[in-house]
Amino acid sequence: MLNPETLSQLQNILGAQGLLTDPASLETYGCDWTKTYEPAPSAIAFPKTTAQVQALIQVANQAQFNIVPSGGRTGLSGGAVAAQGELVVSLERMNKILEFNTQDRSVTCEAGVITAQIQQFAAEHDLFYPVDFASAGSSQIGGNIATNAGGIKVIRYGLTRQQVLGLEVVTGKGEILKLNNGLVKNATGYDLRHLFIGSEGTLGIITQATLQLIRPPQNLTVLVLGVPEFGALMQVLMRFQADLDLSAFEFFSDRALHYLVQDKGLAKPFDTPAPYYALLEFENDSAGREQAALQAFQDCLEQGRVLDGVMSRSQTQAKALWRLREMISETISVYTPYKNDLSVRVSQVAAFLQAVDQIVAERYRAFEVIWYGHIGDGNLHLNILKPATMEKAEFFEHCAAVNEQVFALTQSLGGSISAEHGVGLLKRDYLSYSRSPEEITYMRAIKALFDPNQILNPGKLLS
Amino acid sequence: MLNPETLSQLQNILGAQGLLTDPASLETYGCDWTKTYEPAPSAIAFPKTTAQVQALIQVANQAQFNIVPSGGRTGLSGGAVAAQGELVVSLERMNKILEFNTQDRSVTCEAGVITAQIQQFAAEHDLFYPVDFASAGSSQIGGNIATNAGGIKVIRYGLTRQQVLGLEVVTGKGEILKLNNGLVKNATGYDLRHLFIGSEGTLGIITQATLQLIRPPQNLTVLVLGVPEFGALMQVLMRFQADLDLSAFEFFSDRALHYLVQDKGLAKPFDTPAPYYALLEFENDSAGREQAALQAFQDCLEQGRVLDGVMSRSQTQAKALWRLREMISETISVYTPYKNDLSVRVSQVAAFLQAVDQIVAERYRAFEVIWYGHIGDGNLHLNILKPATMEKAEFFEHCAAVNEQVFALTQSLGGSISAEHGVGLLKRDYLSYSRSPEEITYMRAIKALFDPNQILNPGKLLS
Repeated sequence: MLNPETLSQLQNILGAQGLLTDPASLETYGCDWTKTYEPAPSAIAFPKTTAQVQALIQVANQAQFNIVPSGGRTGLSGGAVAAQGELVVSLERMNKILEFNTQDRSVTCEAGVITAQIQQFAAEHDLFYPVDFASAGSSQIGGNIATNAGGIKVIRYGLTRQQVLGLEVVTGKGEILKLNNGLVKNATGYDLRHLFIGSEGTLGIITQATLQLIRPPQNLTVLVLGVPEFGALMQVLMRFQADLDLSAFEFFSDRALHYLVQDKGLAKPFDTPAPYYALLEFENDSAGREQAALQAFQDCLEQGRVLDGVMSRSQTQAKALWRLREMISETISVYTPYKNDLSVRVSQVAAFLQAVDQIVAERYRAFEVIWYGHIGDGNLHLNILKPATMEKAEFFEHCAAVNEQVFALTQSLGGSISAEHGVGLLKRDYLSYSRSPEEITYMRAIKALFDPNQILNPGKLLS
Repeated sequence: MLNPETLSQLQNILGAQGLLTDPASLETYGCDWTKTYEPAPSAIAFPKTTAQVQALIQVANQAQFNIVPSGGRTGLSGGAVAAQGELVVSLERMNKILEFNTQDRSVTCEAGVITAQIQQFAAEHDLFYPVDFASAGSSQIGGNIATNAGGIKVIRYGLTRQQVLGLEVVTGKGEILKLNNGLVKNATGYDLRHLFIGSEGTLGIITQATLQLIRPPQNLTVLVLGVPEFGALMQVLMRFQADLDLSAFEFFSDRALHYLVQDKGLAKPFDTPAPYYALLEFENDSAGREQAALQAFQDCLEQGRVLDGVMSRSQTQAKALWRLREMISETISVYTPYKNDLSVRVSQVAAFLQAVDQIVAERYRAFEVIWYGHIGDGNLHLNILKPATMEKAEFFEHCAAVNEQVFALTQSLGGSISAEHGVGLLKRDYLSYSRSPEEITYMRAIKALFDPNQILNPGKLLS
C-alpha cells in the first residue's frame, strides 16, 4: 500500500481532483471485465498530460510501488486488474483528439479516447477506422493498442497493429519515446513501436497514438447462413472468398441464437433450423459483387453446405443481422461464462473445431457450451456457462482443468491460446503453450530493459 | 581473417561444396548494390539447412569471428557488404518453397527464395504477392524481410512487414526461434517477429518465412500524367484517392524521362512537355472505376493540375507505362548516382519537395539531379549524378556534406532519412536524424540481448 508521504507526492503531481482513494473508485478502477479477481488498488491517478504520466512513473521507481495502466477496462484476461495495492493510472482524462490531416488520412489522439469516438470522428471526415468489436463503446485507444485489439473486421483490415502509424509512450524507466512519427515508411532500425503494441502495459504507458484512417466501405451487405456442420463452415468461407473480399466472416451456434432470442428478443434470421450460423459481410459497391454473392450462396445451397440464408437489403437490416453476432457476449455474460479465446491457422479450423467438440463432449458433459468467433481468421471463442447451482470457484476450477487439454490441443496444431484477448493474469501460467522457453526468456529480458524495477503491471503477461 | 582450423570446422559443417574462398566469389558475395565499399570477406558459406546456419553461428561465437548474412545483395545501404574479413553466409541455396495452403492463402519458404519466384508462385495459384520493386528478380525473401522492403505497391498493400505471418530465425546466440507460426491472431505477449523485420541481419539470420498471399487485383490500369509543379502533385493524389483505391502513386521528373528516352529508347508517354510526371495505378474492375478515373483526370486538367495524360488500354500498355518508372534506377546507375531515400508524412511532401529543391539548387548547382519516388506514401528518391569528370571520392564527399542539410530538413519535418533502403553502413552515422538517443540506446540493448558477442553484421545499423 502507498504511504501518506507518497500519496501526497502523487497529489502534488496530479492536482486536487487527480487522485481518488474512495472505496467506490477503488472498486471501479481496480478491475476489468474479468470478474474472477477482487479489486484492491491503493489509489487511482488521473493524469492529464504525458508529463504527469512520466512524473508518476518516476515516483513509482523511487518509492518502489507498482502501477497498473488502465484504459476502458473491457479486457477479458485481467490485464487491467489491480488486486495488490497498486496505483491505477487511468488514461480517461487524456481524451483529446489532437490532430487530423486529410492528406495523411491520419488522426493523432491521446490514449484515453474511446474507440467509438475515433470511429465516429473518422465517419465525420468521410473516412473509416476499421477496428471494431462489441466493447468499442467503452474501450480506449491506448488499451486497444496495448492489447493489439482485433474484432470483427480483421479478415479484411487486420488488427489494431496495422492502423498504428505512431506512438508516444512513457517507458517503465520514465523516458518519453516518440515512435515512428506517423510515417508510412521508415527503415531506420528496430521498430520499437511494434514492441509496445500488444505489450499489455508491461513495458510502458501509451500516452498518444497516430492512427491510419481509410476510405469508408460502400454499402456493406450482410449474409447470415445456416450451416449443417463444422466441416461445411470453412468450405463456405472458401467459396465466398474466391469471388469477394469479405470484410467479416463470423460464426455462432444455435445455442448462442437461442439466448439471443430468449433473453434479448432478437428475431431468428430465418425459420429453417441449423446447428451453426455464418455471418458474412462484403462491400456491395457494384452489381457484379451482389451477383457473385448470390451465386456463391446458390452453389453452397446446392452442395448442401448451406441450409438457408438471408441477405440484408438495407443498412437497417445489415445492422439487425450484426446484432445476432455482436450481442452474444453481453447476452451470455449473466450466465458467468468461462471464456476461451483460441486461434489456429484457417486451414486447421475444421479439424480444430471437431477436436475441441470432442473434448467438450467428454469434459463439459454437465455444462452448456456456446460457440462463436471470428472464424474467418481462425479465431474461436468457446464459452462454457456456469450451471446455476454450481459455486463459482468449483466451476472455474473445473474449467481450468479442462483448459490444459484444450490448450494442449491448440499447441499441437501450432495455435494460440489467446488469439485477441491477451495474456494478463488469466493466461499467464499457460503462456508456454504458445511461446517457446527461449521466446519467454527474451520477453523477460526485454521487460527488464524497459522496466528494470518491474513497476509496470507486474505479474501480468509474465510471472 | 579466419584461420585454417576455423575454415576446416566450417568445411565440416557445410560439406565439400559449401564453402568458397576463391577471389571471384569473395568479390561477388562481399558487396551489394552500393559500390562505395571494397569487398573483402574471408569466405562464403552456403548453408542448406537451418541446422547448418545454427552451427555456423555457434562456431562464430566460439571462434569470435563476424558473420554477414547475405541475400540477393540488391541493398542500397551497404547492409550486406563484407569489407573486414567476415564470413558471408549466403542463403541462396536455401531456396525451397516448403508449404502452400489454399485455405490459409499462405506460403512457407526458405529465406533464399527470390522475390519474383514468390510472385510467380502466387500467380500460378491464382493469388498475389503484393510486394514489388525493381530488384524483385534478384532480391530474396529473407533480405526483403530483414530490410522490411517497400516498393511500388505500398500505398495499397503496405510493406513486407504486413505479409509476414511467421518467421524462423537463428539468433546471434545460436537459438532457433519459430515466431508466430503463420497465425493471423496471436495475442500472447511481445511480438518478436516484428523486431526481426527490418533488423538488417543484426539480431539473427532469417531462415524461413510464412507469407500472406492475397486475391489478385483485376485489370490493373495505369495512368501517366504530366504535372506542372510539385504543389500540384499531391492535389492530384488527393483527387484520385477520393474516389479510387490507388495501388500505386509514383512520380518522376522530366530529367528521369530524358535518360529513359536517350539511353533505353523508351517512348515518351505523350508529347506535351511537363516538368514532372505522376504514375497512378488502380484496379479497373467495374465500369464505375474507369469512369471515376476519367472524371478525376478531367477535373485535374480543368484545374490546371495536370497538363496531359494517358491511360493504359491493355496489360501490355500498362506494363510499358510502368517501365517509365521501374527502369529509372537501372538507367541512371551508369552515371554513379548518389542516392537519397527520404520520407515525410504525405501532408508534408509538397513543402518538403520545395525545400529540398532549394537546397539542391544551392548546393548541387554543378550536378544533375534526378527526382523520383513513391510519393503517394511520402517516399522521395533523390538521385545526384556524378559529373563525368569528377573523381568518385570527391563527388561522394561533396554529397555527404549536402546530406547533413537534407537530413536536418527531413528531421525538422519529422521524416525518415531512410524510408525503405535501410541503414546499413551508409546511413549508420546519420541514424540520430531519425531516431532519438533513447531509442538508439534501446536498440543497442536489444542487439546485446540477441547477439551478445556482436558477431552478426557488426558495424551495420549501429556503430
